[in-house]
Amino acid sequence: MRRILIIGGGGMVGQKLAHRLSAHGLDGDRNIEVTLFDMAFPEGGAPAAERITGQLGTPADIDSLVAARYDVIFHLAAVVSGDAEANYQKGWEINGASVLHFTRAVQAEHAASDGAWVPRIVFTSSIAVFGPPFPEKIPDDQPLTPQTSYGAQKACAEFMLNDLGRKGAAEVVVIRLPTIVVRPGKPNLAASSFFSGIIREPLNGQEAVLPVEDDVRHWHASPRAATGFLVHAAGLDMALLGDNRVLTMPGVSCTVAEQIEALRRAAGDRAVALIRRAPDETIRRIVGGWPRDFAPKRALALGFTADRDFDEIVRIYIEDELPDSPP
Amino acid sequence: MRRILIIGGGGMVGQKLAHRLSAHGLDGDRNIEVTLFDMAFPEGGAPAAERITGQLGTPADIDSLVAARYDVIFHLAAVVSGDAEANYQKGWEINGASVLHFTRAVQAEHAASDGAWVPRIVFTSSIAVFGPPFPEKIPDDQPLTPQTSYGAQKACAEFMLNDLGRKGAAEVVVIRLPTIVVRPGKPNLAASSFFSGIIREPLNGQEAVLPVEDDVRHWHASPRAATGFLVHAAGLDMALLGDNRVLTMPGVSCTVAEQIEALRRAAGDRAVALIRRAPDETIRRIVGGWPRDFAPKRALALGFTADRDFDEIVRIYIEDELPDSPP
Repeated sequence: MRRILIIGGGGMVGQKLAHRLSAHGLDGDRNIEVTLFDMAFPEGGAPAAERITGQLGTPADIDSLVAARYDVIFHLAAVVSGDAEANYQKGWEINGASVLHFTRAVQAEHAASDGAWVPRIVFTSSIAVFGPPFPEKIPDDQPLTPQTSYGAQKACAEFMLNDLGRKGAAEVVVIRLPTIVVRPGKPNLAASSFFSGIIREPLNGQEAVLPVEDDVRHWHASPRAATGFLVHAAGLDMALLGDNRVLTMPGVSCTVAEQIEALRRAAGDRAVALIRRAPDETIRRIVGGWPRDFAPKRALALGFTADRDFDEIVRIYIEDELPDSPP
Repeated sequence: MRRILIIGGGGMVGQKLAHRLSAHGLDGDRNIEVTLFDMAFPEGGAPAAERITGQLGTPADIDSLVAARYDVIFHLAAVVSGDAEANYQKGWEINGASVLHFTRAVQAEHAASDGAWVPRIVFTSSIAVFGPPFPEKIPDDQPLTPQTSYGAQKACAEFMLNDLGRKGAAEVVVIRLPTIVVRPGKPNLAASSFFSGIIREPLNGQEAVLPVEDDVRHWHASPRAATGFLVHAAGLDMALLGDNRVLTMPGVSCTVAEQIEALRRAAGDRAVALIRRAPDETIRRIVGGWPRDFAPKRALALGFTADRDFDEIVRIYIEDELPDSPP
C-alpha cells in the first residue's frame, strides 16, 4: 500500500486532490492511504485516513510528518502572495524557512534510512517567480526575477527542492502553477483573488469587484486541471526530468475582457452586470508585474494538460461547485 | 562615526578587508570603527575595534550582531563549495538557513527602529549560481542554474537579500565574486582550491597538485580586487542599482595553461616544474560545470574594476604575501 501525505490538505487544492485520490486512486492504483496535514480543515471535507492539525512554522510538526516516511508527499501549503507581501516575517517563515526545514528533514530521514526511503515529493511553486520585462510567451528557461516576497520565496523553494532531488534523497517534481480559477468559496488574501471573484460572485448572484483594467492578460488553470497536474507529477518518470526538476505548467492565457465574455456565454448579461469596476492601485501594481502567457514546452512534452479555454474553466466551476453551493 | 561589521572577518577576504579599512578608511572616510565576527581569528591578524567569536548556525549570535545596528555590514561568511557538497546539512544550515535568519533579523530590527535603521549590506555570492550550458561570455541576465548545493544556497541567498533590499529594510548590494586567486596560506575545502595552489605552492618552492586539464578555463580575481569590489559596493549609489541588487563582478578569464605561463614569466621554469598533474575525477566534474567567462556589463558600468590580467594576479600575490611568508 502506498501512503500519501498532502501538506496543505485542508486548503482548496488539497481538498480537491484528496477527493480525487479517494475517487480514482493514484495512477489507477487504489491501494493507497491518504493523510492530510494543515492548520485547520473544512467541516465535512474530503475523506482521509488521518487528518493531522499542525503548523508549518513549528519545526517539530514537520519533523514528525517526515519521520512517518510517506511514499508520496504533496506539499501545497503556502502563505499566499498578498499576505506574504504585507507580512514579511510570516511569509519568509512559512514559504522560506519552513520549506528549508522540510527539505533538510527529508534528507536527514533519507540518510537515517540508509538510503532506503526515497519519497516522491511534488511541490507547488508559482509563476510569481517571474518578473517583467517578459517576452510575449515566456519560455521554460526564463530567468527568475521575482518582484514580490512571495515570488522570491517560491524561487528559493525551487532551488531547495531541486537540490534535494539532485542529492538523491527524494524524487522531486516542482510544478509552477498558473493562477487557479475559479476558486470556490470566499475571496482570499491573494492579489489574484479577483480573477476568481469576477466569475464566481456573478454565478452566485452576487456583486464582484474588478480592481484592474479589462485588458489585463493573465495565465489560468482550473482546480481540476491543477489536481490533474499534481497526480501526473506524482507518476512522472523521473528519468525524463533530468537535472531540472522544476516545470512551468500549461494554462490558459486570456484577458479579463475574455474572462468576462466567457461568463456572458455561460450565464448571460445579467451575470456580467454584477461586475463592478473599482480600480485598486496596489493590486494593479502587483498584477502588472505578473506573467501573461507561457510556452511551457517541457511540461507539454511530459504530458501535462491544461484546460482547453476559459469557457471550460467556467464550465468546470459550474459542474464542480454550483450543485453544492447554490446562490 | 560609521560602525562597520564584517561577518566572516576572520577569513582570508575578511582579514584583507579589515586591513584595507584600517589603512585607507571607507570611501576616504577614516572616521570608522570595524568589528569582526567569525568562528575564529588568525593570530595577530587585522586590526579591529572588536573581535566577536560566534557561530552563524546559532540564531542568538546573529540576533545580537543585528541588534547592535551597524551602519555597514559586510557578510562574507560561508561554508565553501566542496564542504557544502560533502555536508548537505551543514551547507544548508550556514549558507541557507542562517542567511535567512540574518535577513529576517535585519527586517525585524529595521521595523523596531521605526524605519530609522537602514544598514548598507554587502553580501558575497558566487558564480557557482550558474550552470551549463553556458554562452561563450555569460551575460548579466543569465538564468540561475546551480549544479551544486553551494550554488543553490547562494542562489537562495541572492533572492533573500534582494527581497530585503526591495522592502527598504536595508541598502543591499550582492556581488558575485569570481574565484579568488592567489589565496595565501593553505589549501581549503573549496573545489577551486587548486587554482591558487598551482601558483602559490611553486612560488613557495613546494610541489602543487593540478587535478584538471590545462585547457580548463575559469574566471578569477585577486584578493586585492575582491576587497576593492567590497569597498566599492559599500559606497555605491543605490539609485543606480534599480530592482536588481545582484551584480556579477568583473574578472580575468584564462585557462590553466595561461595561469602556468604567467607563473613562468614571474618565477621561471623551475617554479613551473613543481606542478604535478594528478587528475581527480570529482574535482574535474565539479569544475567542468563552472563558468568560464563573463560579460559583466552592469558591474563595469557601475565602476567595479578587475585585475588587468593573470600576470597582475600573480604579481599581487608576490607583493602582498611573499614578504611575510618566505619559502
